[in-house]
Amino acid sequence: MIRFDDAAAFTRALATLPEPDASAIEAAAARQAQLTKPAGSLGRLEEIALFMAGWQRRERPRADCIRAAIFAGNHGVAARGVSAFPPAVTAQMVENFRSGGAAINALAAACGADLSVVPLDLDRPTADICEAPAMTEAECLHALNAGAAVVTPGTDLLFVGEMGIANTTPAAALCAQSFGGLASDWIGRGTGIDEAGLARKADAVARALALHGPHCTSAFETLRRLGGREIAAMAGAILAARHLSVPMLLDGFISCAAVAPLARDNPAITGHCLASHASAEAGHARLLHALELRPLLHLDMRLGEGSGAAVAAQVVRSALAAHGGMATFAEAAVAGAL
Amino acid sequence: MIRFDDAAAFTRALATLPEPDASAIEAAAARQAQLTKPAGSLGRLEEIALFMAGWQRRERPRADCIRAAIFAGNHGVAARGVSAFPPAVTAQMVENFRSGGAAINALAAACGADLSVVPLDLDRPTADICEAPAMTEAECLHALNAGAAVVTPGTDLLFVGEMGIANTTPAAALCAQSFGGLASDWIGRGTGIDEAGLARKADAVARALALHGPHCTSAFETLRRLGGREIAAMAGAILAARHLSVPMLLDGFISCAAVAPLARDNPAITGHCLASHASAEAGHARLLHALELRPLLHLDMRLGEGSGAAVAAQVVRSALAAHGGMATFAEAAVAGAL
Repeated sequence: MIRFDDAAAFTRALATLPEPDASAIEAAAARQAQLTKPAGSLGRLEEIALFMAGWQRRERPRADCIRAAIFAGNHGVAARGVSAFPPAVTAQMVENFRSGGAAINALAAACGADLSVVPLDLDRPTADICEAPAMTEAECLHALNAGAAVVTPGTDLLFVGEMGIANTTPAAALCAQSFGGLASDWIGRGTGIDEAGLARKADAVARALALHGPHCTSAFETLRRLGGREIAAMAGAILAARHLSVPMLLDGFISCAAVAPLARDNPAITGHCLASHASAEAGHARLLHALELRPLLHLDMRLGEGSGAAVAAQVVRSALAAHGGMATFAEAAVAGAL
Repeated sequence: MIRFDDAAAFTRALATLPEPDASAIEAAAARQAQLTKPAGSLGRLEEIALFMAGWQRRERPRADCIRAAIFAGNHGVAARGVSAFPPAVTAQMVENFRSGGAAINALAAACGADLSVVPLDLDRPTADICEAPAMTEAECLHALNAGAAVVTPGTDLLFVGEMGIANTTPAAALCAQSFGGLASDWIGRGTGIDEAGLARKADAVARALALHGPHCTSAFETLRRLGGREIAAMAGAILAARHLSVPMLLDGFISCAAVAPLARDNPAITGHCLASHASAEAGHARLLHALELRPLLHLDMRLGEGSGAAVAAQVVRSALAAHGGMATFAEAAVAGAL
């Protein structure tokens, strides 16, 4: 298990990222070349097999142990009317996750993922990022470690998701701070806000950037000032997974926004991550481009909760089933190309 | 079970296509509106749920019984050097399907599909379409009925695939005949042919169109003259599935090309079909556009065998798991939008 003792430990962990196993990737590629199909004809399924081989450090990676963690947090900035839903919905949805009624419950079951639900101090929203840092150092560290704590060595595939009414606003602020651009470049309709709400959202992001921008000198400080508990938890899980060589599926806009400040400090952080899908949330395409990630799916989803990652996990399962289960040309006595 | 007694029966069946159940679609849409998520936030998963509801004629469609059928055929035109693999590979791959070593075996198992393998007179290739009709009327009817025979009423989801060395050449001819354009608009690398092979392919398609074009006055006649046994079988399965209200996933270029002549005669034929994926084969994007189908996946696959459909079936399973398994706002005591 990984634990960050302080902000400096988080910064050190981000600066020293392990690489995938090149020999496992090479062995997986050699296997792919012998399987009974034209070279390259499984397209991205072949890429996925090699990616998983590198991080699982074996020629035939597995998808037997898939874990999902959904983090929930509340946001002071919600009081500015930046969401179509009331903040009470965060806790209500956590109950829904626990009783098995949410989309992620059904989707995690469909892909065989073991689901953890991690609510983070829902009765203590973060501070309004337009007025103060979202979290104290201790609060941010606590959230990062809550994320790191869900990562178990030997997990075949991990994905993270979130629930937090109003969290597209801090997510947009994190993106703008990390990759530049205007507030309006990064905001979108979220759960379905109207025009007036969208204007309030742009205003909130601009105010937060003006207040905190000059102080965002590290990934930790950016997450602490502009993020939220569930966002920091996802960032902690992603960094911990890297150090435990656990491959990950990112979900949509919020989970990618959690990576943004880490990627600004060390662009290699996304190396153990696949982008699940291109969200319908406006800023996600720009964010994926900035992170140099190519999404697996384009299904116009925009729910969060890890829902897109759970669908993408099905594609990973298929990719590994083909990679591990197919016969070679020699085994099947099939002739190769002319 | 559906059986076409003669060419005229096939033509009549194509002219009289049943529609989906509007009240089941309406009930499914009403259910979607009550599930614990922002409206529309599951994107295409919601579309899939409604599509499946319409054809299964129930509010909560199932994915318990998924069937796949892979048809195999050989092609006289292969002698013109239009494929990177020798024709003997068709029968070798059928053996591979039967012993479980091909991509489709692994991918069908991953999505829980029951797989049938249907070789069609592999020792009697069709005639070279540059010189004669591919099949006699009796041969074409036999292939259409071999396809129709795999469709069982009550199947929750069916997908079809194919194996047939050289079959991208008749497929390109079917597309050009059905939707116009030059031979070069519809041909591609197939299993990986070189420049000289590509030129031979363009020449073969152009010759076949010049010879048969004026005689292709119906879907049956177009399939018979320019198609192949596995292609006609897929067309038969697709038409039979429509009459038995079985929703289908099309696979890649060849399975969509099997629909092309049917769609020219009756564009409504694709109503019970989802396009699984956008193949890396050059003509597929144009073909999907002509068929007005929007693919679910973009994974650069180009294997055939139903492999793309088997991955897309995972997405359908996820969509139906969410649609059927989620709680409503009332059941979960979650507040709706403000």
